Amino acid sequence: MYEHEWVCRWDHVDVAQRAYFPRLVNAMHQAGEALMEDVGWPYGDNPTEHGMMLPIVEIGYEFDRPVGMGDRIVIEVEVEMGESSLRLSFTGRDHDGEVAFTGFEQHVCVPVEGDHSTPLPDGFRDALESYEGPE
Amino acid sequence: MYEHEWVCRWDHVDVAQRAYFPRLVNAMHQAGEALMEDVGWPYGDNPTEHGMMLPIVEIGYEFDRPVGMGDRIVIEVEVEMGESSLRLSFTGRDHDGEVAFTGFEQHVCVPVEGDHSTPLPDGFRDALESYEGPE
Amino acid sequence: MYEHEWVCRWDHVDVAQRAYFPRLVNAMHQAGEALMEDVGWPYGDNPTEHGMMLPIVEIGYEFDRPVGMGDRIVIEVEVEMGESSLRLSFTGRDHDGEVAFTGFEQHVCVPVEGDHSTPLPDGFRDALESYEGPE
Amino acid sequence: MYEHEWVCRWDHVDVAQRAYFPRLVNAMHQAGEALMEDVGWPYGDNPTEHGMMLPIVEIGYEFDRPVGMGDRIVIEVEVEMGESSLRLSFTGRDHDGEVAFTGFEQHVCVPVEGDHSTPLPDGFRDALESYEGPE
Repeated sequence: MYEHEWVCRWDHVDVAQRAYFPRLVNAMHQAGEALMEDVGWPYGDNPTEHGMMLPIVEIGYEFDRPVGMGDRIVIEVEVEMGESSLRLSFTGRDHDGEVAFTGFEQHVCVPVEGDHSTPLPDGFRDALESYEGPE
Repeated sequence: MYEHEWVCRWDHVDVAQRAYFPRLVNAMHQAGEALMEDVGWPYGDNPTEHGMMLPIVEIGYEFDRPVGMGDRIVIEVEVEMGESSLRLSFTGRDHDGEVAFTGFEQHVCVPVEGDHSTPLPDGFRDALESYEGPE
Repeated sequence: MYEHEWVCRWDHVDVAQRAYFPRLVNAMHQAGEALMEDVGWPYGDNPTEHGMMLPIVEIGYEFDRPVGMGDRIVIEVEVEMGESSLRLSFTGRDHDGEVAFTGFEQHVCVPVEGDHSTPLPDGFRDALESYEGPE
Repeated sequence: MYEHEWVCRWDHVDVAQRAYFPRLVNAMHQAGEALMEDVGWPYGDNPTEHGMMLPIVEIGYEFDRPVGMGDRIVIEVEVEMGESSLRLSFTGRDHDGEVAFTGFEQHVCVPVEGDHSTPLPDGFRDALESYEGPE
C-alpha cells in the first residue's frame, strides 16, 4: 500500500471553509504521480522514454467528511492492472484514521502515435508489481 | 437545457497538451455555478440568505476526447431534484457538437448548523423548475 | 484599450472570503490571452507557427480593494512593445469603476531554439498596433 | 533562513512544458504558509485567535530560469517586519543551487473589523524573531 501525505493549505480551501473538491481530485492525482515517480516510471517520461501515455478515461469520487485548513491527509493508493488499463484507487484518511474521501482513476495505455489502446509495457507492470515502498 | 461556454486557456492545459482533467471538473462546476446565478440562487448566498448549503457527496466523469488549447466547449447542464438532494449532469461538446466529456455532481442539502440532510427549500425547487433560460 | 470581463467564482475565493491573489494573477494573464487571441496571435500558436515564444521574466501587482464571490471585474489591458520585449499592463475595476488591482507582465521574445532574445516579429507588432478592438 | 521544498508536478506545468508562473506565485505563498505554521502563527488562525489578518497589498517576482516537470526547488524565505507590515522575500533554487526565481509579498496587518492598519501583535513579532528553524 502506497501512502502520500497531503496538507490542506490556503490555496485549497473555498468559501465554505472546506477543501474545494477539484483540489482533492488533484491531490489524489498527485499521490499517484508520487507513486509513479518512486516506482521509476514518472508520467512525464512515458511519452519521451516509453512511447506511450496513460490518459484518464473515467474518474469517480465520494466525499465522506469535510477537509479543512491545515488538515493533514494520508492518501493511500492501490493499483490494479488489466491488459492495457491501469486503475488507481485512493483512500484519504484524516489524522484520526477516519476516511475523508475515496476515489479512482481509470487510465488506458495508448501509443504516442495512434489512439487505439496498447498493452502496458512489461517493465511498467513489473516495476509496479515488485514495488515494495519508498526507499 | 442550460448551456455555459468554457474556453480552454493556457491555465488549463498540461504537459500532454490537453486540458488537465481536474480543470474540466472545475469547468463543469462553474457551469453549475452560472446556472444557479441565473436562477437567482447563487451557491454563495445559500448559507447567509437561506440557512442551508449544498455540499457535494459524490462525483463521476468520463472523458471521451481530448480538449486542447483554445477549444471552445459548450457545457450543457441538466438538473434532477430529490427530496433533499440535487444532481447536476453535464455534457461538454466541442464546436462540432461531439461529446468531449460527461459527468455529474451529487449534492445534498444540509442546514448551516447541523449535518443531517434537510429538504430543498421550496423557493429553490420552484426557481429551478420554472427556469426558462438566461435573460 | 482592450477590456476583458472576469467573474469571481467559487473556485477563486479563499478562506478569508476574498479572491486568492494568485487567481487574480491568473485572471490578468487570461485577459492578455484573450487579447492575443482577438489580435490573431494566440500565445499557443507562437512556437508552432511563428518559431518564437514570449516567456515572462518579471511581474508585479498591487491590490487596492478586496474582490469577493460573484464580483464582476473588467480588466483593462495596455500594451507596450520594445525591440524584443512586450509589456502588458492591467487595471481591474469593479462594477463601480473603482480600481481593485493593477499589475504588469514583462515578456521577452525568444526563438523556440536558443535562449537569447530576438526582435518581435513585424506581423505581431503590426497586429497589435493596428488592433481596433474585438469584432 | 527558512527553507521549503516544492516539487513541480503535472498540475503545475503548462503548454510550454514549464511551470506556469501563477503556480510559482502560489508555491512561494505556500512556503510562507509553512513558515507561519512552524512558527506557531498559521495564517488561518489569525482572524479567529488573534483578531487580525495579513492581507497582501503588493507582490513582485522575477523568473530567471525555467522550472520543468519533476524539478525539486528549495524556496528560501526571509522575513522583514515594520510597525504594521510584514514582507516575505523568496528565493527559489534548483538542485544545482542556481536561482530559478525570486519574489516578495508585502503584507499589512489589519484588524478583523476595520480597514486601517494596526501594529503587528507582539507575540507574532517575538515568534518570528526568535524562530530558529523547524523542529
